[in-house]
Amino acid sequence: MNNLPLQETGSRLKRVQHAIIERQADACIITSSVNQYWLCGFIFDGFIFLFPEGEPILFVKRPSHIRDERAKQIRKPEQIPDMLREEGKPLPARILIEADQLSFSATTRLQAALGMPEVNNISAELRRIRAVKSEYELEQIRESARIHTKVYQLIPSLYCKGMTDLELQIEIERQMRLHGSVGIFRSFGENMDIFMGSMLAGDNAQAASPYDYALGGEGITPLLPIGANGTPLLPGSTLMVDMAGNYRPWMDDMTRTFAIEHAPDIAYKAHQVSIDIHNAIIRDFRAGALCSELYLLAEEIVNQNGLSPYFMGTQQQAKFIGHGVGLEINEPPVLTPRSQEALEPDMAFALEPKFVLPGIGAVGIENTYIVHESGFEKITLCEEEIVVLS
Amino acid sequence: MNNLPLQETGSRLKRVQHAIIERQADACIITSSVNQYWLCGFIFDGFIFLFPEGEPILFVKRPSHIRDERAKQIRKPEQIPDMLREEGKPLPARILIEADQLSFSATTRLQAALGMPEVNNISAELRRIRAVKSEYELEQIRESARIHTKVYQLIPSLYCKGMTDLELQIEIERQMRLHGSVGIFRSFGENMDIFMGSMLAGDNAQAASPYDYALGGEGITPLLPIGANGTPLLPGSTLMVDMAGNYRPWMDDMTRTFAIEHAPDIAYKAHQVSIDIHNAIIRDFRAGALCSELYLLAEEIVNQNGLSPYFMGTQQQAKFIGHGVGLEINEPPVLTPRSQEALEPDMAFALEPKFVLPGIGAVGIENTYIVHESGFEKITLCEEEIVVLS
Repeated sequence: MNNLPLQETGSRLKRVQHAIIERQADACIITSSVNQYWLCGFIFDGFIFLFPEGEPILFVKRPSHIRDERAKQIRKPEQIPDMLREEGKPLPARILIEADQLSFSATTRLQAALGMPEVNNISAELRRIRAVKSEYELEQIRESARIHTKVYQLIPSLYCKGMTDLELQIEIERQMRLHGSVGIFRSFGENMDIFMGSMLAGDNAQAASPYDYALGGEGITPLLPIGANGTPLLPGSTLMVDMAGNYRPWMDDMTRTFAIEHAPDIAYKAHQVSIDIHNAIIRDFRAGALCSELYLLAEEIVNQNGLSPYFMGTQQQAKFIGHGVGLEINEPPVLTPRSQEALEPDMAFALEPKFVLPGIGAVGIENTYIVHESGFEKITLCEEEIVVLS
Repeated sequence: MNNLPLQETGSRLKRVQHAIIERQADACIITSSVNQYWLCGFIFDGFIFLFPEGEPILFVKRPSHIRDERAKQIRKPEQIPDMLREEGKPLPARILIEADQLSFSATTRLQAALGMPEVNNISAELRRIRAVKSEYELEQIRESARIHTKVYQLIPSLYCKGMTDLELQIEIERQMRLHGSVGIFRSFGENMDIFMGSMLAGDNAQAASPYDYALGGEGITPLLPIGANGTPLLPGSTLMVDMAGNYRPWMDDMTRTFAIEHAPDIAYKAHQVSIDIHNAIIRDFRAGALCSELYLLAEEIVNQNGLSPYFMGTQQQAKFIGHGVGLEINEPPVLTPRSQEALEPDMAFALEPKFVLPGIGAVGIENTYIVHESGFEKITLCEEEIVVLS
């Protein structure tokens, strides 16, 4: 069932085992789909038990037949202690769990089933480990970016005069799916729903959302207040397209801006400032740079251009200009002014300095970069200027 | 921001307050998007504090400006005690939380912020409360079912010879979106991902999935092993379409079966048994019936027809034949052989007796019914026979 190279899963296992030893824990229990896939190459309803050394044990509720010799079928977590004993493993006294993802009731049930071990949280550390990619993972992100570019290049041919943001989005969604998008768009954290990405036309770009994405938008239902809301694509306004790059399990992230027939000079000017920020960051930084340094440079350029009231929103302004990407769209590091994190070789991150111009719409670009000792490799190689739809 | 009638949210609030009093709690804290929407008509990043009486307080992190006089802006949960004090509210000593949804780390942080109150789980009870719908909610489910039917009626015109399951699904997805589908498909529980619904062609219907849906399917990525997998739609096989009925916040659920050009007699026979089960259940039951009785009647009809090896899967067989529907696709009650639940007036449930025939595919239908004292109201009024695609 595993479609990942064994070398990949083997080295990931070792990195988690290193964390188990450092944290002086007896076991780490993995329950989230993303981390199950990352460690095993498939997902299941159940628990991966990792130990400081040796092979993990997979306690599987569903599916009912799994072709992996490390798998043991269970109906409920209360069966685990006996099965551990049969394997000659003592009950763990101190466990690490994905406490940011596992529910309170699932955690307390698991804890009771295992005889009340001490529970500690490994969510953030797993995210830090996953932030540094293997060459296999980076190549997936590059492949996703290549397909992402192909789909964005179709956008002018999908546009028809009189369309709404939503009507155009639906045609883009169809092309995304025909090009292999898996549809589902994975993000980390509670209340981070999104469907296939975000399209922001005109003043809908100003609508504040409850989510931690860079920009908002009203959406078409109060149950999912993000993105397109049926705004007609009016001449003189801009359309920001930030649809998912989910063509591989490891994703890229890319935003491009379109003008409906034409756009005011201020839109072109602010858009150029976004491109300038990208270029300045590529010029000045490489592996070892602090995320805060990137943010502060961007902020300085924004201030020099008098655009701070429009930077990353208007009424509600996001406090970051970029983020790691991978199996989830919001991985570490996050490019914030107070971040203590540095960019390490083989991280992949999206940089998205954006402006929201009242009465016009959002402008700017987002690219995904891979961090090398020698500099940042841009992988979202798609026209960066504002493209006119007409 | 609330687009729900005030009477709706008022009566829901009273039902939850009744549960708070019964559980002798001081407060109930709502954090999930679905229950926030159900109680307030909008969602936000933050906490709804409900008390045994009076208005709730909404502690809102994001969005930054919310137009609701009950809302108080916060940056972090640690600010809540002081703000409660300003409102003349004592710190709760015993709280109810959505422990099936809220993460372990968010729960422990909230608990610490509030001075370590006793924490109890209200997830299941909220689901039971939501299972009995208002007329407003039932009318939304009926509207969703009407649009769902319109989309399914387009399927023969979307089919082209030589298509794969996925290619046809993409055209159906587009029509769903053009007809107002919100895209996102809400389900309850961990690891219950799905994208827009399920299409099962031929032997892909036998593939076991890790999820608790009625049937499986391999999917197109190991990160989302459910549904269509690119199987060519071959003459003589069947295609089961179980795409989402998410045209309103309150959803319906409906499955229909198609034959590619033709299908063997056994497919028609088993399909008719599914229809017979629906008709027998409508004939014999009404409000007050036990969920287990419905299951056992279905099982009896299946056994009489010698179809039990194919009922609800082959290698992996689901142990339920239906479920409540509403804001989430898997609401209570669940129609299982050992359920203690009874069907109450104004519940809405989907009934889905299905068969998987090796070498052919899945057959059967799923309808959504509303429970009345006088009987079950069928709301998914769409051709029930196998429809030939050619």
